[in-house]
Amino acid sequence: MALNPVKIAVTCGEPAGIGPEVALKALGGLSGLEIALVGPEEVWESAAKRLGVGIRPDFEIVSPEDSPKIDCQPGKMTPSSALCATLSAELATRMALSGEVDAVVTAPLTKEGLHLSGRHFPGHTELLADMCGVKNPTMAFFGGSFIVSLATTHLPLREVAGSITSEAVLTAISNTCEALKKHMAVQGPRIGVCGLNPHAGENGLLGDEEQKIISPAIAEAIKSGIDAVGPLPADAIFVKLNRGDFDAVVALYHDQGLGPFKLLHFNDGVNVTLGLPIIRTSPDHGTAFEIAHRGIADPGSMAE
Amino acid sequence: MALNPVKIAVTCGEPAGIGPEVALKALGGLSGLEIALVGPEEVWESAAKRLGVGIRPDFEIVSPEDSPKIDCQPGKMTPSSALCATLSAELATRMALSGEVDAVVTAPLTKEGLHLSGRHFPGHTELLADMCGVKNPTMAFFGGSFIVSLATTHLPLREVAGSITSEAVLTAISNTCEALKKHMAVQGPRIGVCGLNPHAGENGLLGDEEQKIISPAIAEAIKSGIDAVGPLPADAIFVKLNRGDFDAVVALYHDQGLGPFKLLHFNDGVNVTLGLPIIRTSPDHGTAFEIAHRGIADPGSMAE
Repeated sequence: MALNPVKIAVTCGEPAGIGPEVALKALGGLSGLEIALVGPEEVWESAAKRLGVGIRPDFEIVSPEDSPKIDCQPGKMTPSSALCATLSAELATRMALSGEVDAVVTAPLTKEGLHLSGRHFPGHTELLADMCGVKNPTMAFFGGSFIVSLATTHLPLREVAGSITSEAVLTAISNTCEALKKHMAVQGPRIGVCGLNPHAGENGLLGDEEQKIISPAIAEAIKSGIDAVGPLPADAIFVKLNRGDFDAVVALYHDQGLGPFKLLHFNDGVNVTLGLPIIRTSPDHGTAFEIAHRGIADPGSMAE
Repeated sequence: MALNPVKIAVTCGEPAGIGPEVALKALGGLSGLEIALVGPEEVWESAAKRLGVGIRPDFEIVSPEDSPKIDCQPGKMTPSSALCATLSAELATRMALSGEVDAVVTAPLTKEGLHLSGRHFPGHTELLADMCGVKNPTMAFFGGSFIVSLATTHLPLREVAGSITSEAVLTAISNTCEALKKHMAVQGPRIGVCGLNPHAGENGLLGDEEQKIISPAIAEAIKSGIDAVGPLPADAIFVKLNRGDFDAVVALYHDQGLGPFKLLHFNDGVNVTLGLPIIRTSPDHGTAFEIAHRGIADPGSMAE
């Protein structure tokens, strides 16, 4: 990543998961950055203890004021551990919005935990966007030069086709183009756009969303000066991205983009939210309850 | 592929596409197999001429009786070229059903061409299944040991969620298991099954098809002695397949399976129809009208 912030807020994520330990592992050898560990002191300290390391004295711990006493066992989320994850994410976002930090790195929490905490968002991305007053953020995944962004995020598949609008596709294309120019210094980014249906609809035989919704959005993007190409079949476009034909691909729904992305970048992918006034990244893995608190989680994605 | 037939019918596919030339290229150096080239003599001969080769004298050409005079230009499908492709596929299937050949290899045609010829099937697979009297064939893709089969095939995305039934999932699991045992000599195949929704529904928060439809199908498969695992998130399951955790993965719809598959096996993947009384394979690419008749098409997938 070519992002260049100076002070970073790193959240603990769900304490019952691998969040706190991957964060500490990933940060252990880092230099040149100021780090604020956002989350209750007890969470950070018990993670450090499990790893058999101390918390670096140059790291500041910032604990949410209203955090409850945490009842936390490895792999077992509780209402208090979930609320801790939620409050930490919210505090870090406020710190970025106020300029206290330059970027936020969020360790994984669960959507169920957000719901348990009374935040009815499907994920971090939507929670942060709401706090930033942004209606249309774009969830994107960076794996080296293999960059995939999504026009819709955590929707049941049943709702995807009805949720794809020209506006959503155009927003994803624009946010992706802007981010590539601003953060990655790509001049005139070339952006591939997926079709929704098999073979991108095969001229209407397998669905008409390409003709009615997606092509008009691409035409609009081109009109505004963006080098957008598509809609292209989703089983060919990632091959083209991988060989460098595009700087990024806009996928229309979660699994369409993330199946191919994670196949190539399971351990080193980074989730970046585009279109926010703050810089926010996160590892692209989950809480991994099954290996929590064993000190064996791979910090690769977090470190990126 | 460990398939071991003796006589193979190879169709010409769409004459305006790359079918005839990739077939001839792929077959050029083959030994130990009897080959019947199925399609009009003029199609095979003009392809051979373009490649600057002769047709091997040990190859038999079998022309459909009712084939029309073909009006054929590179990359431009016509009603006569489409009908030629359709009739050749049908003839080859009849040859396999009658035992005249042991297997059919179909060169690419287009769904539009099938429709032009009055065959209202979305693809080769469904046409052949209909001719074989099979209701539930399974479309599968073999790329070395990376094997992916599909529970639904060429559906507009809008129709996918409503078309996933426990029966369809169970059929795909069973057909895949049978094929792995019969043709690939895998003992007790381990089969991963995708969820339909992001994160496999995340315990119902992102869709309930996993709980209502997919899990019951997997339970049924396990009851019948199949080592089936899932539903698993589609953005993790292909990583597991790739590192050898499974012998095959059942994906629930076209792009879910083919996005990841083609990313790894764009040039050497093979499309195999499972559950038919005949053996049928095809290259997993299309007609490639844009490079047709230029002799530059890659015969890798056809040769496999």
